[in-house]
Amino acid sequence: MVYKISKLFFENDLNIEKNDEFVDQENDKFFMRSEVRGRIEQEELAKKLQEALPKGANIRVIAPKKKKIVVMATKESHVLGDILIRHYDGELPVDIVAVISNYDILRPLVEKFGIDYFHVPHGELSRSEHEAKILQLLEMFERIDYIVLAKYMRILTPEFVSRYENRIINIHHSFLPAFIGANPYKQAYDRGVKIIGATAHFVNNNLDEGPIIAQDVLPVDHTLSWQEMRKAGRDVEKVVLARALKLAVEDRIFVYANKTVIF
Amino acid sequence: MVYKISKLFFENDLNIEKNDEFVDQENDKFFMRSEVRGRIEQEELAKKLQEALPKGANIRVIAPKKKKIVVMATKESHVLGDILIRHYDGELPVDIVAVISNYDILRPLVEKFGIDYFHVPHGELSRSEHEAKILQLLEMFERIDYIVLAKYMRILTPEFVSRYENRIINIHHSFLPAFIGANPYKQAYDRGVKIIGATAHFVNNNLDEGPIIAQDVLPVDHTLSWQEMRKAGRDVEKVVLARALKLAVEDRIFVYANKTVIF
Amino acid sequence: MVYKISKLFFENDLNIEKNDEFVDQENDKFFMRSEVRGRIEQEELAKKLQEALPKGANIRVIAPKKKKIVVMATKESHVLGDILIRHYDGELPVDIVAVISNYDILRPLVEKFGIDYFHVPHGELSRSEHEAKILQLLEMFERIDYIVLAKYMRILTPEFVSRYENRIINIHHSFLPAFIGANPYKQAYDRGVKIIGATAHFVNNNLDEGPIIAQDVLPVDHTLSWQEMRKAGRDVEKVVLARALKLAVEDRIFVYANKTVIF
Amino acid sequence: MVYKISKLFFENDLNIEKNDEFVDQENDKFFMRSEVRGRIEQEELAKKLQEALPKGANIRVIAPKKKKIVVMATKESHVLGDILIRHYDGELPVDIVAVISNYDILRPLVEKFGIDYFHVPHGELSRSEHEAKILQLLEMFERIDYIVLAKYMRILTPEFVSRYENRIINIHHSFLPAFIGANPYKQAYDRGVKIIGATAHFVNNNLDEGPIIAQDVLPVDHTLSWQEMRKAGRDVEKVVLARALKLAVEDRIFVYANKTVIF
Repeated sequence: MVYKISKLFFENDLNIEKNDEFVDQENDKFFMRSEVRGRIEQEELAKKLQEALPKGANIRVIAPKKKKIVVMATKESHVLGDILIRHYDGELPVDIVAVISNYDILRPLVEKFGIDYFHVPHGELSRSEHEAKILQLLEMFERIDYIVLAKYMRILTPEFVSRYENRIINIHHSFLPAFIGANPYKQAYDRGVKIIGATAHFVNNNLDEGPIIAQDVLPVDHTLSWQEMRKAGRDVEKVVLARALKLAVEDRIFVYANKTVIF
Repeated sequence: MVYKISKLFFENDLNIEKNDEFVDQENDKFFMRSEVRGRIEQEELAKKLQEALPKGANIRVIAPKKKKIVVMATKESHVLGDILIRHYDGELPVDIVAVISNYDILRPLVEKFGIDYFHVPHGELSRSEHEAKILQLLEMFERIDYIVLAKYMRILTPEFVSRYENRIINIHHSFLPAFIGANPYKQAYDRGVKIIGATAHFVNNNLDEGPIIAQDVLPVDHTLSWQEMRKAGRDVEKVVLARALKLAVEDRIFVYANKTVIF
Repeated sequence: MVYKISKLFFENDLNIEKNDEFVDQENDKFFMRSEVRGRIEQEELAKKLQEALPKGANIRVIAPKKKKIVVMATKESHVLGDILIRHYDGELPVDIVAVISNYDILRPLVEKFGIDYFHVPHGELSRSEHEAKILQLLEMFERIDYIVLAKYMRILTPEFVSRYENRIINIHHSFLPAFIGANPYKQAYDRGVKIIGATAHFVNNNLDEGPIIAQDVLPVDHTLSWQEMRKAGRDVEKVVLARALKLAVEDRIFVYANKTVIF
Repeated sequence: MVYKISKLFFENDLNIEKNDEFVDQENDKFFMRSEVRGRIEQEELAKKLQEALPKGANIRVIAPKKKKIVVMATKESHVLGDILIRHYDGELPVDIVAVISNYDILRPLVEKFGIDYFHVPHGELSRSEHEAKILQLLEMFERIDYIVLAKYMRILTPEFVSRYENRIINIHHSFLPAFIGANPYKQAYDRGVKIIGATAHFVNNNLDEGPIIAQDVLPVDHTLSWQEMRKAGRDVEKVVLARALKLAVEDRIFVYANKTVIF
């Protein structure tokens, strides 16, 4: 496989700048990610790879360009604010198309950075009705690469999620699969754990059960109330989400079997 | 409270060498651990503290002396071996009274260090019958301070556990409360986590749900099979159990509300 | 000592909410930090403590109130931006009196948050002349509690530093004492380390040698160029500085012997 | 390059089981490590690779087999003991040919495991004379793959080191390059660091300056004396050395420019 692919690159004067391979022996799967430089049309290369590789091979040829993201948030500003700062200083190579929230609280922060803010209150609406309004909004924009849930505190319906398969990234404020669901810091406090964490994952239909992209942890002890754990956890949340988002927009993540292969 | 206790120490010419206090505001509890030096009988000090403090106060006066432990294991040697080496070089201030195992596999390793090894096969026995034999053995020894489960792979009955409340220390090879029960590395692999861990805890009646003493973690990625995760996890298991055991035998752990306060 | 202090609190109806003590056996020093609640004048309590404690005891009685800080920066925005966001969402209990920079680059970011920005170019000025201008500015403000160097890339003179002893907090982008001085990421890359870090410390007269407040690290490997290490290190820098600043403004740091005792 | 190598594997019916590549853009170097399965003589494959690749390419074809190591130690048992236990339970795929020490203290521990122990006292000998005796001993054994310094507390001469280039692995009890030389825990204590560490590296002619293989760290605070730091550091020392040794005996380390590329 490596031979076939590298041969094809060689014959098309494509220079490999970075190459990563992984063989999952258990599931008999082969993964490969190559960064190549040269002169060829994207479709042409994809077609040639299609011909060279066995049927059923999953091929993506991606030209490097800024990804477009929409950020969804609720009331908390630390994760959103971190994304805005990283975007401001050029650290995150994305276009933030818009921020959508079910509250109007974060507007002043977002508008400081000249980014559009859309308040879609859920008020009396059913979950589906609320999401319909959000979807309507999303469809107004050009193609969006990723939706980033920066502490968006509402559960999305399977219908919504299925439209953006492996393109919605959430930060959950626990070390999954521990403490699924509401108020994980309170759960962690009640269980008396000595380490807390955060998990960035793609969203699928089951709450907090999508493919994990990145995790990190923080030691705690008995002196912290659960409110203090929540405060302490903020730094982990924002750093882990940023790391996951960076991996995603650099096209480093392969998803399969509800897991991620990351190069 | 601090005043009353320090007054009592002062009046009895006890010099405070180390002092730790913690107020659990939520549960309105006060914890204090003092290391004092001076001349007073243990019982006398306990009695004076009893008189000085409010009724219901939980008081322990402990003279520093080597704790006696029994280690229980099954087939794996890495955690047991680590305890033996630490004991050998004086790092763990304990007397290892005996090692008990349901297999005879670890005998050569244990006997190298001149420690008694008891093989109590479970064979055809019911859980209670097997434990009865172990209890019989344990009762032969003088008072045992702690039972250390160094990868002992059988579940203990509530009857057994209740005899040694907060005195049985187990190492569970996951970052609890994630992956309770059998083969946590396989569970972690299947879930696709990016960090694995180990948890040392006191054993209570519910499997893997006792008060947590110490936890630590290790980053992993997609390249590790679950067998490789198990191998990688060994170092965390042995280090975390040793840390917990050290805290226990130095009388640093207060247990309440299924949690630990550790000074 | 604990007795004398707790007696004094008791007699003055001061309720201890949090108490920490540390005895440095090697240097024969005693440190104590108490959070008390009650009705007493600050000066009166200080006077009583002075009378109760041995001569030479270093006593500070501090009423909880927002600290005033000035941030100094140069061109990089990630640490400064992080402070601004934390301040914005109330996480850092400080008043940011001003941001001072030797460049005018960060002005738009700072002014988004309604904070005064002062550009003090060093241009043709000698180090002392440049600092004189900054000092002039600082003296215009009411008492400043801390000066935070958020990647301020100029070395301060002993004269400047001595005016704000243990009140200037710097973030150095290495795991001190490794890689003192310029471009520590390049130094780390050249040495081939497997872990990089950041250190927050008080500034004293010797470059990067003041008392360390907080440190953290990040694993790296051969695949990172030094520029990528620098990018990767940003998150550690901002988190470590924020942690140190929080400890400082909550009056948790005791400095002695060029070290910190932190409660 | 990838093309040429994978073509060669393909034409010789060698199946790639694991492949890693790295391009060091800065130094214009290409590194590749392949695990292949098939039927070919080692020398034949080496010859074919030599022909296929540019002149000057550094090629090693290695058949998987147990490496032979000699462990050198002085008085401390924790690192040596850890190696012995790992070896005992099959975790380290090596033959321990012998343990050599300048003291006779560790003999009982080593001989428990049926491993030869050689006491080579330095007594009145000059450094060279002492090493001559050790070299004599080493030459008695068949080819040794690695010499592991498990807290061997004497400095080796350039002559000794040059005989085993990139084959002597040392554990230094600090986070290099901080605290080179004697008693790094005391140095760390005096500097007031908040994190301590350990570094495994190949030994070269300059003390503690060889290529780093693995590092890890441990948080500390003001409450630890330097003796307590030394105790706390033991776990990091033994785990880091074992990790480095495992990487070495699995032929995962490429050394160049005083650094390591590790696949």
